[in-house]
Amino acid sequence: MARWEPNAPERLAQAALELFAERGYENTTVLDIAQRAGLAKSTFFRHFQDKREVLFREDALTGPLLAAIAASPAGAAPLEALARGLDALGLHVLKPERRDMAIRRRAVIDANLDLREREALKGVSLTAAIVRALEDRGASDLAATVAAELGALALQISYERWSDPAATADFGEIAAQAMDEVRAAASSL
Amino acid sequence: MARWEPNAPERLAQAALELFAERGYENTTVLDIAQRAGLAKSTFFRHFQDKREVLFREDALTGPLLAAIAASPAGAAPLEALARGLDALGLHVLKPERRDMAIRRRAVIDANLDLREREALKGVSLTAAIVRALEDRGASDLAATVAAELGALALQISYERWSDPAATADFGEIAAQAMDEVRAAASSL
Repeated sequence: MARWEPNAPERLAQAALELFAERGYENTTVLDIAQRAGLAKSTFFRHFQDKREVLFREDALTGPLLAAIAASPAGAAPLEALARGLDALGLHVLKPERRDMAIRRRAVIDANLDLREREALKGVSLTAAIVRALEDRGASDLAATVAAELGALALQISYERWSDPAATADFGEIAAQAMDEVRAAASSL
Repeated sequence: MARWEPNAPERLAQAALELFAERGYENTTVLDIAQRAGLAKSTFFRHFQDKREVLFREDALTGPLLAAIAASPAGAAPLEALARGLDALGLHVLKPERRDMAIRRRAVIDANLDLREREALKGVSLTAAIVRALEDRGASDLAATVAAELGALALQISYERWSDPAATADFGEIAAQAMDEVRAAASSL
C-alpha cells in the first residue's frame, strides 16, 4: 500500500547528491538512492522517469518562474516580467540554505556527458516555456523569443555566480545585477 | 588496408538519412549505414563517435562560421561579424542543393528524444565556440555571450525557415533578414 511520503522528491534529490559525491554517478543505482532516502524504489519512479531526472526537478524552478512572469503587471515589458521571475526564484526556491546542494549538483553534472546533455535539453525546454509565458502576456513571437534567450542567459549567469563556493550575496541580488548587465550588453550591440 | 574514401562523411550522412526515412532511426544500425554508403564500418567510426553523430557533422557548420567571424574586419561589431558568418554558411555549406537533406534531417531529429538532446548539446557547444571566437576579436565576456546567444538564435530561426519545404529564398537572404529581426527585437526590449 502506497503511503504518502512527505517531501519525497526533495529527499530523493538530497540522497542522490550524497551518493553521487560518495561513489560517483555511474556507481549509484536508483535502488541505492531510494534506500538512502528511506523510500521505496517505486516511490522514486512515481517522481522521476530515470536516474538523470533526479538532478533536474524542473518544476522546482519552472513553476515559480512562470507563475511570477504571469503575475507581473499587465504593462510590464518582457524583460521586466523576467526580472520578477528571477526575483521569485530567489525568494521561494534558490534560498541561501539551498546553496550547498547547488554546488554539489554542479560538480556532478559537470563530470558527466549524459547529464550535461540532459541539462542542455532542460535549458532549451525552459526557454521554450518562457517564450510561451511571454506570448501569453501579448509579446510577439520574436520579442518573446529574444527576451526569453536573454532571460535564460541571465538566469544561467546568476545560477553560476550563486553556486560558486565564494559567493556571499543572495540569489535575488545576484540575478538583478546579472539582468542589468545582460540588458545593457544587448542594447549596446 | 585503409583506402582513402572520397567524401566519406557526406556519403555516410546521406546513407543514414535514407535509411532513417525508410526504416526509422531505431531500426538502423551503423553497419547498415556503412553498407548503404559502400564503406566499411571502421570508416564510419573514423568519422563519427556513434550513430547519433552522423546527423551532427558539426565541423560542417562550425568551421566555416568561425572562420568567417575571425576573418571579419577588425572594427566589425560582434553582431556584424556574426552576420558575415551566417552569410558564409549560405555560400559554402547550406547551399540550395542541400535543402532536401536538411528537411529530411529535421524530421528524423524531431521524432527522437536522444537526437533532440544531442542537438541541444550541440547548440550549447556551438554558442560557446562563437563566444570564444568573439572574445578573440576583443569583445568582453558578456558582450560576446549576449551576441553569441542572439547570433545562435538568428541561425536557428534561419535554419528552420530555410528547411521549411515551402521556402524559396537562399539561406544567405533568409539569415540576413533573421539577423535584422533579432537585432531590432533586442534593441527594443
